[in-house]
Amino acid sequence: MTFKLSKYFPILDWGRHYRGDTFVNDGIAAVIVTIMLIPQSLAYALLAGLPPQVGLYASILPLVAYAIFGTSRTLAVGPVAVISLMTAVAAGKLAAQGSPEYLAVAILLALISGIMLTVMGLFRLGFIANFLSHPVISGFITASGILIAVSQLKHILGVNASGHNILEMGQALISKLAETNMPTLAIGVISTLFLFWVRKGFKPLLMKLGLPERLAGIGTKVGPVIAVVVSILAVFSLGLADEGVKIVGDIPKGLPPLTVPEFDLGLWRSLLASSLIIAIIGFVESISVAQTLASKRRQRIDPDQELIGLGTANIAGAFSGGYPVTGGFARSAVNFDAGAETPAAGAFTAIGIALATLFLTPLLYFLPIATLAATIIVAVLSLVDIKSIKQAWAYSKSDFAAMMVTIVLTLTLGVEVGVMSGVAISIAIYLFRSSRPHFAIVGQVPDTDHFRNIERHKVQTNPRLVTVRIDESLYFANARFMEDAIYDLALDKPELEHVILMCSAVNDIDLSALESLEAINERLKTVNIKFHLSEVKGPVMDKLKRSHLLQDLTGEVFLSQIDAIRQTIGNSHGVELEYHL
Amino acid sequence: MTFKLSKYFPILDWGRHYRGDTFVNDGIAAVIVTIMLIPQSLAYALLAGLPPQVGLYASILPLVAYAIFGTSRTLAVGPVAVISLMTAVAAGKLAAQGSPEYLAVAILLALISGIMLTVMGLFRLGFIANFLSHPVISGFITASGILIAVSQLKHILGVNASGHNILEMGQALISKLAETNMPTLAIGVISTLFLFWVRKGFKPLLMKLGLPERLAGIGTKVGPVIAVVVSILAVFSLGLADEGVKIVGDIPKGLPPLTVPEFDLGLWRSLLASSLIIAIIGFVESISVAQTLASKRRQRIDPDQELIGLGTANIAGAFSGGYPVTGGFARSAVNFDAGAETPAAGAFTAIGIALATLFLTPLLYFLPIATLAATIIVAVLSLVDIKSIKQAWAYSKSDFAAMMVTIVLTLTLGVEVGVMSGVAISIAIYLFRSSRPHFAIVGQVPDTDHFRNIERHKVQTNPRLVTVRIDESLYFANARFMEDAIYDLALDKPELEHVILMCSAVNDIDLSALESLEAINERLKTVNIKFHLSEVKGPVMDKLKRSHLLQDLTGEVFLSQIDAIRQTIGNSHGVELEYHL
Repeated sequence: MTFKLSKYFPILDWGRHYRGDTFVNDGIAAVIVTIMLIPQSLAYALLAGLPPQVGLYASILPLVAYAIFGTSRTLAVGPVAVISLMTAVAAGKLAAQGSPEYLAVAILLALISGIMLTVMGLFRLGFIANFLSHPVISGFITASGILIAVSQLKHILGVNASGHNILEMGQALISKLAETNMPTLAIGVISTLFLFWVRKGFKPLLMKLGLPERLAGIGTKVGPVIAVVVSILAVFSLGLADEGVKIVGDIPKGLPPLTVPEFDLGLWRSLLASSLIIAIIGFVESISVAQTLASKRRQRIDPDQELIGLGTANIAGAFSGGYPVTGGFARSAVNFDAGAETPAAGAFTAIGIALATLFLTPLLYFLPIATLAATIIVAVLSLVDIKSIKQAWAYSKSDFAAMMVTIVLTLTLGVEVGVMSGVAISIAIYLFRSSRPHFAIVGQVPDTDHFRNIERHKVQTNPRLVTVRIDESLYFANARFMEDAIYDLALDKPELEHVILMCSAVNDIDLSALESLEAINERLKTVNIKFHLSEVKGPVMDKLKRSHLLQDLTGEVFLSQIDAIRQTIGNSHGVELEYHL
Repeated sequence: MTFKLSKYFPILDWGRHYRGDTFVNDGIAAVIVTIMLIPQSLAYALLAGLPPQVGLYASILPLVAYAIFGTSRTLAVGPVAVISLMTAVAAGKLAAQGSPEYLAVAILLALISGIMLTVMGLFRLGFIANFLSHPVISGFITASGILIAVSQLKHILGVNASGHNILEMGQALISKLAETNMPTLAIGVISTLFLFWVRKGFKPLLMKLGLPERLAGIGTKVGPVIAVVVSILAVFSLGLADEGVKIVGDIPKGLPPLTVPEFDLGLWRSLLASSLIIAIIGFVESISVAQTLASKRRQRIDPDQELIGLGTANIAGAFSGGYPVTGGFARSAVNFDAGAETPAAGAFTAIGIALATLFLTPLLYFLPIATLAATIIVAVLSLVDIKSIKQAWAYSKSDFAAMMVTIVLTLTLGVEVGVMSGVAISIAIYLFRSSRPHFAIVGQVPDTDHFRNIERHKVQTNPRLVTVRIDESLYFANARFMEDAIYDLALDKPELEHVILMCSAVNDIDLSALESLEAINERLKTVNIKFHLSEVKGPVMDKLKRSHLLQDLTGEVFLSQIDAIRQTIGNSHGVELEYHL
């Protein structure tokens, strides 16, 4: 295996073939994504409890880093809703929103999770994300969407109300209802209704006006920009800021500052758990977006290199005043639809956002917070996925249980507890199932070499022999189960001479299970029953040869079940048989 | 199913047939076990950091409770080494040794773990103990034995030295070496050497003197009693207590007091984790002893009822001034060898110990602590199981790894962290393995209906078709692995028309894996490859019928692999074949 530099720098691959028409396509996509990203970046910074410019900063250097190290051609990284919420939760535990410490913690979260992602990528640990099951991810995203939407209602009402979970938030909102600022409410409600209409009705309208479907689809993404422009003009011309409508106000002009994250060991340690969760959730969200888009163009994603791409993006963000970022679905889809061909589109978008920080921020002075909250609410409600909940209910009650635990705990105990409980419960369910494996007594299908479950097929058995097939690898959690199952079958049967354990579905036997097999062998010996194994797979047999079991075994190990029958009770034809079913 | 009272009160079963000769046998066993238990109870109370009489109290009512509720005919419950150490660790976190609070915490540990065990028994949760793998248990017991032995060295030297782990203990001992009390050291070393000799040389000697082997074996168990008697006489006659030899001193005379455990909610909550670990470790130790002995007499143990037996024993202990107890190996083996036939032997032993608390305690005034420490050291060194370590190394490196993690962390970070890390690492190893399942491309064994791994067997394949057999249930942790494996095999092969996933070793497909199968189906569709399943098991098929996969599938589901071959590429004879191996 030779070391390939382009494996770690995918830019070397696509950069070599970069041509003029690719540049044009990437450039057009970048302009469209930039326009979409500006209000989104401001809104998600608000959600994360950070000054609005931090959202813009997080949309510059991270995009450049991803363009160099990422493997997806069309993924657009930057601030996203769920990660912004998680940043707010993690930073809120250590500092007050609005304080310099809060910003420092947010930057540090980007740095630490960036380092974690990069290290995981270098050690090819991307598989860790596989332990987040689909029901847990889906439940977590749904619950986060609801949490985020509810958290923004205070901005729509124009009141101060906060809480750590859905109940506290609801209570706080209700108690402050009387303080609602009417102009704010008007802006919030009109923006929200407008944005919902843009989602549903704008595309057909644009198509009626003669735009092709793809362009019409992209057109709907500028809805937030229209809402932003109109509401700025409204606040400015009607003097609503004096009526109590909260506005964005002064945004520092200029490129992101070079920030050096804090190196306080105690602070780092207290952020490790939150950073890891942010890193993994961000990775899972990003990789699923990247893979969905890649498969549409039959491209492939390297998950381990994606870790490095996302990791360096976050590290770059940390050194330029940003906060945790990841690949977002909405913007990546726009990038894709707008015709982006290479990660260069991301780099061009970064230039667009940089220009915005240089020239555009004064224009945003009168932007009402309520409009940003409306864009968040409309964006996150699409995360709520009732269909998946129904699907889980129909397919598997245990998947449904894992999903509901995740949803309920995320809503009531918060995002970190919610997602960790979801992971724990789905692993526990899996372990529980494998600890009580399916097992069957099998008999011979007449006149064939096939053996099937006596409860599902018409098969022959013989009272001198019982064959048990256990449909699971044998390991510590089910070893005792196997012992009990075999004792239940074999003891107190005076005619029985042979017990055969059919291992066709046994992919591993660990030390605990080995000791159980030895115990079974010993126990059956005391009642003069021989214990045999059949259809042991190659790798399992290799392992058993390193133990004493094969020497101590009262019976034999047979390659096939039919051999086992022939060599224990002779040709089964001619002896007394019992028929089943 | 009818409710059987004797299921929950096994005493109703054996009590009905209780006869005179059973009474004689049980009585003889009880006398022998009582003699053995007195020094042991005192010693383990010392190890737990409790006054000596607490060890005696823990050997009275718990035995009666177990006699009523337990299912083992010969298990002897009472204080044991490992649980005493765990009690010391748990109580030491909340109170100072020797304080009334410390004793109260020890009593509460017995109560809470007793309640936990009983509840687990009523809900039939005995399987939880199966998640402690053999290597973890064995490593934990070995490390505990070493920890306990080292913790007793200070009593042999007659110095004050303590520590929470093996390193701290070693350091403390070395720094106090100069303060060694010589008469104490003499008693300690002589007792230790004597007890070791009793283990090895006493039985042959007794047999030479004409005793039958079984009696000689029991005779060696009175070694500690001889050591106790001789050292009491020595201390008394030589006036060694004035030379700085620490003695047991006044032990309150009389039956155990009726104690009402404290009901302080905060205290209860802080003891939950420790109690659970004590409950589970105690149960695992007890059940393995019970099962070993039961299988020798072909009796059976009901694990769930055993939980109730042990649970009520601990609750009884908590209300009579005792601390956590469980079934001990040494005493149960003596009980067995001495001829105990029913749990009544345990109740008679309780009477024996009760008599000892009434009449014997003044005689123990001059008993040197060093002698008790010697009995502990000699007892626990037999827990150190080097053979199991070697066996794990030879059989499986991952089992060995789990064992070593448990040993090293138990020694350096303590018993609770050690055992929990062991459980976590063994579950992690299992999950990791099942997340990268063994999979094989299979081909047809010529002229048969059998299909085998192309890398291990001489089989036929066809370039228009590839069959993959995944040897594991498909679930969230390996769903992505399966996707990647199939894409690697199927994409970029222009001749390929059919991919068959052979599910003979797939016992479950969870929602995450279902979504991966749908993704594979979609992806292969884009390159005009049909995706089929074969040999899907009944329960898995039932589940798939509740999903959309079967409607969306580009290929079909075949009952057997040979059908799949015949109906996709026709009779395989007559088409171009590749041969393997």
